[in-house]
Amino acid sequence: MSLLVTGSIGIDSVATPHGKADDVLGGTAVYFSFAASNFTRVRLVGVVGDDFPSEMLDVFARRDVDLAGLERREGSKTFRWQGKFVGDMNEAETLGVDLNVLAEHGPKIPDSFTDSDTVFLANTHPTLQRELLSQVKSPKLTVCDSMNLWIANEKEELLKTLAVVDGVIINDGEARQLTDRYNLVEIGDMLLDMGPKFAVIKKGEHGAILFTSEGPVAIPAFPTKTVVDPTGAGDSFAGGMLGYLTEIGDTSPAALRRAIVRGTIAASFTIESFSINRAVEVTREQIEDRVKTFLAMLRIE
Amino acid sequence: MSLLVTGSIGIDSVATPHGKADDVLGGTAVYFSFAASNFTRVRLVGVVGDDFPSEMLDVFARRDVDLAGLERREGSKTFRWQGKFVGDMNEAETLGVDLNVLAEHGPKIPDSFTDSDTVFLANTHPTLQRELLSQVKSPKLTVCDSMNLWIANEKEELLKTLAVVDGVIINDGEARQLTDRYNLVEIGDMLLDMGPKFAVIKKGEHGAILFTSEGPVAIPAFPTKTVVDPTGAGDSFAGGMLGYLTEIGDTSPAALRRAIVRGTIAASFTIESFSINRAVEVTREQIEDRVKTFLAMLRIE
Repeated sequence: MSLLVTGSIGIDSVATPHGKADDVLGGTAVYFSFAASNFTRVRLVGVVGDDFPSEMLDVFARRDVDLAGLERREGSKTFRWQGKFVGDMNEAETLGVDLNVLAEHGPKIPDSFTDSDTVFLANTHPTLQRELLSQVKSPKLTVCDSMNLWIANEKEELLKTLAVVDGVIINDGEARQLTDRYNLVEIGDMLLDMGPKFAVIKKGEHGAILFTSEGPVAIPAFPTKTVVDPTGAGDSFAGGMLGYLTEIGDTSPAALRRAIVRGTIAASFTIESFSINRAVEVTREQIEDRVKTFLAMLRIE
Repeated sequence: MSLLVTGSIGIDSVATPHGKADDVLGGTAVYFSFAASNFTRVRLVGVVGDDFPSEMLDVFARRDVDLAGLERREGSKTFRWQGKFVGDMNEAETLGVDLNVLAEHGPKIPDSFTDSDTVFLANTHPTLQRELLSQVKSPKLTVCDSMNLWIANEKEELLKTLAVVDGVIINDGEARQLTDRYNLVEIGDMLLDMGPKFAVIKKGEHGAILFTSEGPVAIPAFPTKTVVDPTGAGDSFAGGMLGYLTEIGDTSPAALRRAIVRGTIAASFTIESFSINRAVEVTREQIEDRVKTFLAMLRIE
C-alpha cells in the first residue's frame, strides 16, 4: 500500500520558551512524511527552490520516503516560515512568511506515483488540491487539510474540494471559521454534511475529535511534560493517522478510532524536539509502546 | 457515608448565546450538592441573607440534601453574581459580583455534621477553609477548590490549606496562576508536591486531567451539542466525583479514575440548561447510561 502526500517543504526558524532553531527543515509534507513512514511507504510531492540545501534531504534516506515527486525549481526560492510559540504554546504566532515557490504553479504528480492508494492533500490552494488529486488514478482514501487563508478567501473552492474527498483533518480554529459556529460537535456534523465521510478536528494540547456516521469520538492529547516545539504536531497527527490507515487498508469507524490514536502518539514525539529531530529517530516500537500506555490510560472500567 | 460541602449559595443572572436567566439559584455549594446527591447523602453548609427567597430552597426537597447547615443571617444580603458566556463559552465573563454575606464571618458546621466522611471545601478564603475543616472530627477524604483572588492575594494561606487536604480540584487557569508554569503535566506534579495525594485540573470543554502517584490521566469532556449555560460545570464535576468516591468508600487511583468520569458526566447534564434546572431532574440511571457511552467511546482496542 502506498501513501502520497502533497504539501510544503520549507525552511523554518522557530522560537519557543525552550530555545530557538534557525533555518531548519520544516513544512507540512515533511512532518507528515516522517510520521507516516513509521507505518507505510510514503511518496512526497512538493517543490523547493534552487536555494534549498541538498544536505537537508539526507535525513529522508533514513526513512521509507520516496522523493521522486520533489521538484527542485531553478530560479525559484524555497518557502520559509518564521514563528514563535509562547505561554501554553497551543498556537503559533507567525513572525514572517515568504511563500516564494509556493506562490508559483504547483508541482506535478510523477507517473510512478499515480497508482497511490491514499492521498493526503496538505494545506494549499483548494483548486490546486483538486488538480493534484485528479492526477491520481483511483485512490482508495483521499483526505485534505486547509487553513484560515483559504477559508477566508477561497471558501467556494474549498467547499468543492471537501465535496470530493473522503476525509478532512483541520484544527478547531479553522473549523470554527469555516462553519461560523462554536460548538465543535455541531461543527463536526456540518463538516460531514459538506461531503467527507469522516472529519477530525485537532485541538492541540487538548486532543482531537473524530466524526463519523457513528458519532463523535473525543480523545485527549498524550499527557507529557516534554513539549519543546509544537511545530508540525498537526501534520504529524495526520501522518500517523493516514500512515496507519494505509497500512491496515481499513477505513471503518473502528479503524479510524485506532488511527487517531496513532496520530496523537506520532504528534507527541514530534513536539519533543525542534524540527524533525525527534520524529526522525522514533521507532515503530516506541510508537506502539506509547499507544499501549495511552489506551491503558483511557481504559476505565 | 456522608459528604459535607461548604461553599456559596447565591442568586445568579447569566446570559449565554442561548438566552438569559435572571435571579436564579446558583453558587458552588448548590451545583456541587445536586451533582453529588446522585450518589450519596449531601450535607450543605453555607450562609444566605434575609433577602433569600425561601421558595428557592423548595428544589432541595427533591434531592437527598440536608440543609441543617444552611444559615439564614438576619440583616445580611445574599451573594449575587452576574455573568455572561460568549463564543466558545469556555470561560465566564463576570459582569458584577456582590459578595454581601460572603464578606462577613463564615458559617458554622452543625454538630450533626461533624461526623462527615468526606469534606469538600469549595472556593472561599483559604483560612476559612481550614477553620471549617477543623470542625469536622475525623474525615476520611478532604478536598478543596480555590480561585484567582486567593491565589493572587492569599497564596501563603492557600498553601497551608493545600498541605492539609487529600485532594485539590481546580481549573487550568488557576493551576497555571498558582504555579507560574504552563505545562499542565508539570503543574500536576507540582500540585502533588504541595501536599495533596491527588489533584484534578479541569479544562472546561477540553476535559480534565487527574494526577496521582500513578501519573497523569487525561480524559476529554463528554462531546455534546447541548451546551446552554456552562455555569456550575466545574462544581458539578467536583460533586459528581466526590459523591461517587463517598458512595464507594475508595480513593485508590483506580477509583479516582472512575470518579472523574462521574464528574465529567454530572457536568455534562448541568450545562444542558440554565441554573440547576437540568441537574435537579437528572437520574442516577441517566448518569450511568451516559457513563457507559463515554467509556465505550474511550475503549479503543
